[in-house]
Amino acid sequence: MSRTEIATLGEFGLIERLTGDITPLRGSTVRGIGDDAAILDYSGRRTLVTTDLLLEGIHFDLVYVPLKHLGYKAAVVNFSDIYAMNGRPEQITVSLGISKRFSVEDLESFYSGLRLACEIYGVDIVGGDTTSSLTGFTISITCVGSADNNKIVYRNGARDSDLLYVSGDLGASYMGLQLLEREKAAWDGSGDFQPDFASKEYLLERQLKPEARKDVIKALEENAILPTAMIDLSDGLSSDLLHICKQSKVGCQVYEERLPIDYQTAMMAETFNMNVTTVALNGGEDYELLFTVPLTLHEQMNAVPGVHLIGHITKPEQGCYLVTRDGQEMQLRAQGWNHLAEE
Amino acid sequence: MSRTEIATLGEFGLIERLTGDITPLRGSTVRGIGDDAAILDYSGRRTLVTTDLLLEGIHFDLVYVPLKHLGYKAAVVNFSDIYAMNGRPEQITVSLGISKRFSVEDLESFYSGLRLACEIYGVDIVGGDTTSSLTGFTISITCVGSADNNKIVYRNGARDSDLLYVSGDLGASYMGLQLLEREKAAWDGSGDFQPDFASKEYLLERQLKPEARKDVIKALEENAILPTAMIDLSDGLSSDLLHICKQSKVGCQVYEERLPIDYQTAMMAETFNMNVTTVALNGGEDYELLFTVPLTLHEQMNAVPGVHLIGHITKPEQGCYLVTRDGQEMQLRAQGWNHLAEE
Repeated sequence: MSRTEIATLGEFGLIERLTGDITPLRGSTVRGIGDDAAILDYSGRRTLVTTDLLLEGIHFDLVYVPLKHLGYKAAVVNFSDIYAMNGRPEQITVSLGISKRFSVEDLESFYSGLRLACEIYGVDIVGGDTTSSLTGFTISITCVGSADNNKIVYRNGARDSDLLYVSGDLGASYMGLQLLEREKAAWDGSGDFQPDFASKEYLLERQLKPEARKDVIKALEENAILPTAMIDLSDGLSSDLLHICKQSKVGCQVYEERLPIDYQTAMMAETFNMNVTTVALNGGEDYELLFTVPLTLHEQMNAVPGVHLIGHITKPEQGCYLVTRDGQEMQLRAQGWNHLAEE
Repeated sequence: MSRTEIATLGEFGLIERLTGDITPLRGSTVRGIGDDAAILDYSGRRTLVTTDLLLEGIHFDLVYVPLKHLGYKAAVVNFSDIYAMNGRPEQITVSLGISKRFSVEDLESFYSGLRLACEIYGVDIVGGDTTSSLTGFTISITCVGSADNNKIVYRNGARDSDLLYVSGDLGASYMGLQLLEREKAAWDGSGDFQPDFASKEYLLERQLKPEARKDVIKALEENAILPTAMIDLSDGLSSDLLHICKQSKVGCQVYEERLPIDYQTAMMAETFNMNVTTVALNGGEDYELLFTVPLTLHEQMNAVPGVHLIGHITKPEQGCYLVTRDGQEMQLRAQGWNHLAEE
């Protein structure tokens, strides 16, 4: 592949090259890239806004993360936050700090992933900021979404006796990361190294190309089910569930035997000699939806595919516990990915 | 001052400490920090969104930029983009990548500047993302604003014979930066070094604590003047004026003798042996408003304080020129701060 130095285009040339042919998909995008600010219009619906900052060396390792996947994931994790409010992602702005070693083609790869995600989820890229970085690649994405005022789902609406559901399965993304780290450590720097990824494709996909659960939001709506509280799983089930409990001022019980875990996740945990329940509780970046619904909706929930009943909400004084397979109660703790805590 | 290690609080503790007592000012802020996304409502007005990424070593040097000032400036430069669309900034999200050497008190200083700016301009902080950084301090701010649909001012509305105005004065921020760089170079690392800033306070203020021209937007509205095109000056007059001309498909003439330049800017340029007109044309970070109005509004413009008529718009085939004091025409070129171009 040919390599074009960024300096040959300059800042405005680069932006033109990356975004010049972007045309709006959403009716709400009145004006996108090219002015001091983008212009949006939701005709009376509420506006949602969320943002994520991804830093090289902290959130991703370019040794094993392809730039196209990184672009895809950077967009999807923001969409996931909007879905977690029961909203619809509409637009994103993309700010990039670009290290000197990047070529224009590298950035085009990144943008191709970003644009693929936007196409699939029906979201417009409406602006951003592009600058050079003295150090690593820096990605900051802000997503704007819309929602019906009376259908927004917060973290603070869970009530005693509500049922607790999670979509998909847990811990696979974290196992994918461990696998990638292992192969990186084994890599001797030679070109002919063959990483051992056979029959672990699902783990890699969950780590490198996660999806936001638009389908679950759609299925809930089609079945006229409005969750009482909802959050997307980025820090790990324990940590994110504790957010719901703290903000809703409730306790919870989660049943170990009900935690949805993929076969590959379980096998990989075994290989790494890790407790698979710990992985399911604390592995981050699942981007699944964790939500509560009133007990009375139990029957209707059977019509929603891909979700699992894992426990229920209790009174606050009962605390937040995992009920293990042998009937013991263990307190849930926020042990997820805490980039700021002491190692 | 006491120093609290960030690790003692953890991510959520830190966010609570920095943002726990933030209460919404704007009626349009339905829900701020604390859920997956913030919720905004503009009752039918258009939504504007703009974003800026600031990286240590590229956009600021913590050797001479106090963190409080940095917070103030990081917010204000985003407000400036919203005003440049004739909008009103309403909310910001703040994402920070924090280097290990920072203490909680450092971040509180940064936030105090951020919050001061928000207070003065009437803007709410509604969310963000906080992570650790392996390298420098990273700041990404996204500003959401609102505007009346029929009063939004784009970059592409300038027409032949329109008058060209700029607010405030030009080049002072760039001279302030040169001054700070000079004193940094002179600093021998000892504690008792006294930088020579006497009678240069205005230059430092323009660089370290710029303001967005809310007052100009207000004065234009009070006088029922709607510019045909507008941009805020971040890259330098030449570069930003060329954006207007390119997008409006027009040419322009700017008169050297009419460029507003402060006395301190002129003195400093002399000290540094720089051409003051070059400084005024290409010095960045003025955050003044550059705008065009129809010739017929010439009289009304006299009622708007703090703005200067510096030239006019021409037909596209006439190109973009500076008319020098001795009557020569020099083509305007985008020579502003281009972080991505070859040095």
